[in-house]
Amino acid sequence: MTLPPPVRAGQPVDEVDTPALLVDLDALERNIALMQRAADRAGVALRPHAKSHKSADIALKQIEAGAVGVCCQKVSEAELLAAGGVGDILVSNQVVGPKKIGRLASLARHVRLGVCVDDAGNAAEIAAAARHFGGEIAMLVEVDVGMGRCGVDPEGAAALCRHVSALEGVRFAGLQAYHGRAQHIRDHGERGAAIAGAGVIVRRVLADLAAAGVDCPAVTGAGTGSFEFEAASGIWTELQCGSYVFMDADYAANLDEGGEAVSVFDHSLYLLAGVVSAARSGRAVVDAGLKSLAVDSGLPAVADPPGVRYLGASDEHGTLDTGSGNSPPLGGKVRLIPGHCDPTVNLHDWYVAVRGDVVEALWPVTARGAVF
Amino acid sequence: MTLPPPVRAGQPVDEVDTPALLVDLDALERNIALMQRAADRAGVALRPHAKSHKSADIALKQIEAGAVGVCCQKVSEAELLAAGGVGDILVSNQVVGPKKIGRLASLARHVRLGVCVDDAGNAAEIAAAARHFGGEIAMLVEVDVGMGRCGVDPEGAAALCRHVSALEGVRFAGLQAYHGRAQHIRDHGERGAAIAGAGVIVRRVLADLAAAGVDCPAVTGAGTGSFEFEAASGIWTELQCGSYVFMDADYAANLDEGGEAVSVFDHSLYLLAGVVSAARSGRAVVDAGLKSLAVDSGLPAVADPPGVRYLGASDEHGTLDTGSGNSPPLGGKVRLIPGHCDPTVNLHDWYVAVRGDVVEALWPVTARGAVF
Repeated sequence: MTLPPPVRAGQPVDEVDTPALLVDLDALERNIALMQRAADRAGVALRPHAKSHKSADIALKQIEAGAVGVCCQKVSEAELLAAGGVGDILVSNQVVGPKKIGRLASLARHVRLGVCVDDAGNAAEIAAAARHFGGEIAMLVEVDVGMGRCGVDPEGAAALCRHVSALEGVRFAGLQAYHGRAQHIRDHGERGAAIAGAGVIVRRVLADLAAAGVDCPAVTGAGTGSFEFEAASGIWTELQCGSYVFMDADYAANLDEGGEAVSVFDHSLYLLAGVVSAARSGRAVVDAGLKSLAVDSGLPAVADPPGVRYLGASDEHGTLDTGSGNSPPLGGKVRLIPGHCDPTVNLHDWYVAVRGDVVEALWPVTARGAVF
Repeated sequence: MTLPPPVRAGQPVDEVDTPALLVDLDALERNIALMQRAADRAGVALRPHAKSHKSADIALKQIEAGAVGVCCQKVSEAELLAAGGVGDILVSNQVVGPKKIGRLASLARHVRLGVCVDDAGNAAEIAAAARHFGGEIAMLVEVDVGMGRCGVDPEGAAALCRHVSALEGVRFAGLQAYHGRAQHIRDHGERGAAIAGAGVIVRRVLADLAAAGVDCPAVTGAGTGSFEFEAASGIWTELQCGSYVFMDADYAANLDEGGEAVSVFDHSLYLLAGVVSAARSGRAVVDAGLKSLAVDSGLPAVADPPGVRYLGASDEHGTLDTGSGNSPPLGGKVRLIPGHCDPTVNLHDWYVAVRGDVVEALWPVTARGAVF
């Protein structure tokens, strides 16, 4: 038994049952166009990260706007997006173990598929599976450019690239160079300096590759917090930004050169919550807590009604400070801006796609829960 | 397209694809029996909270062991558990708005169903829906006994109980008196004092009800952190503990009278993660981050291998300090004890139920994502 969506297409937004993820289509489409224009102007490719939205519908909109394909983090995400019609997918992550490698190689017969590696043995296993299944896999060598998570040290990168280049069944497709820690550095100058440091590392690897006579077709990376620096660097050839489609409270706290909030992208993702208890003056309790909203990067902001603050989350409840006046009544609706969009989306089965006051479409969260 | 489970029943645990939720059946069954025995000894009913496990299979095990039924927090959870064969369900929460109230009343024709209220108008709407659909709903008045979330003030409780008693279509079934904040007070004496304070509040309401000639059939509440106090109070007649089936790192940090870790219940829930990168000495990266593990109550503990610590989570990755030696290799498995079991379970579609080294069964997370 699965649950029905929280509303039907064509109904007014007032009919949406809570809690539910709302997507403001006008804002979403503006964000998609803006990022594509930024990539086009810089002469780099855009490969948006689908780990943010996990939606085949949104991925296809991004590709229609000019993106070369999408990224995702898990083989299961790639399988589900491919089943949803997405034809070019980079798993910007390590894929380890015979089960997952077999699924990856099998999927490569159906779509253009890429994967990252930071281990020679793992690369060889993937190549063997690709030969077995008869599809070609684009393989990128991940370099640790400052994040300290996956990726080889810069010194070992060229050797691994040469190793990959020599493997049959896979095609050496370049470098994965993503600096995750830089994305949420609030200060514009410091954020730029972090990416400049990553650029120094990538240049060193590119010089090693040139010296070894290995052609490097692409350098891919960047995120919503830092993409302007990678785009202008002359080093990166492809951007992997994801969160710009929705924006969240955390990314919106980044600052521009003038120390102002970065405001290029609009919030397009909301969590619509309903008031389930208003027994106390100045307080209201909504039906959206930890199982509807990720709070790892901070509590949600309240978009409306004005003057209301989200004070705290328990599993299924959120407590609001409603101030004096403007208190939403029992059954009233509150629109929340999630602190962190990616893990919030992963909690839901449906997007309610809204234009103005009308529900235009219902989109499944195609890859919700696709963890393996 | 939905994803297959991460293993087949009958296979060895080594075959489980990661990340995956493992349930240690021996520990689970011990926990279920222990809590039932505690309730039986105290002469109170046990109505375990299914919001922790969201599983019809586990709910039926609890009922088979002697529980009178289960609690849940959402109408959608109740619908899914009912479809899974659970016949007695209390929605220990407010249900607001015509859509949800209609679903609640409709479900009451099929199972024994209860709900909580803290608002007279809401109670009347539920009663009207119950009359319309022709099922009876047990209605409990929620009293705020110190949590400061939902629930009426003690002074207003008796009036609302009288109001509910007079409604046709619903049966006044008693008081919901749950002190959520008390559950994680580490010190045993302070935890007991918090529940004693809640007991004073409940006694006052019971006295008001007696004075008004209203019979109060039950007082229900309590959680895994505090149940021994409610069970011994002579006030509560029913316990709603949930997390005891699994235990998590947060509950395991509570202390007993002697200042020792409360150790009555065993950890039975694990998140099996796989190493996807071991490029750096002393560090490993696993495939389980924020989308596989809730970190709101702290990072997961590492059950095994020994000497390994979980340092931090990003969306799909966890970084481990592997210390010196014992470092799990690429593809190696790590068992994690979630910091907070309830929202962790909600991230997964399947339980892998394990006895010893063998997968005995696969259980769906029946009410995963049931937020409305």
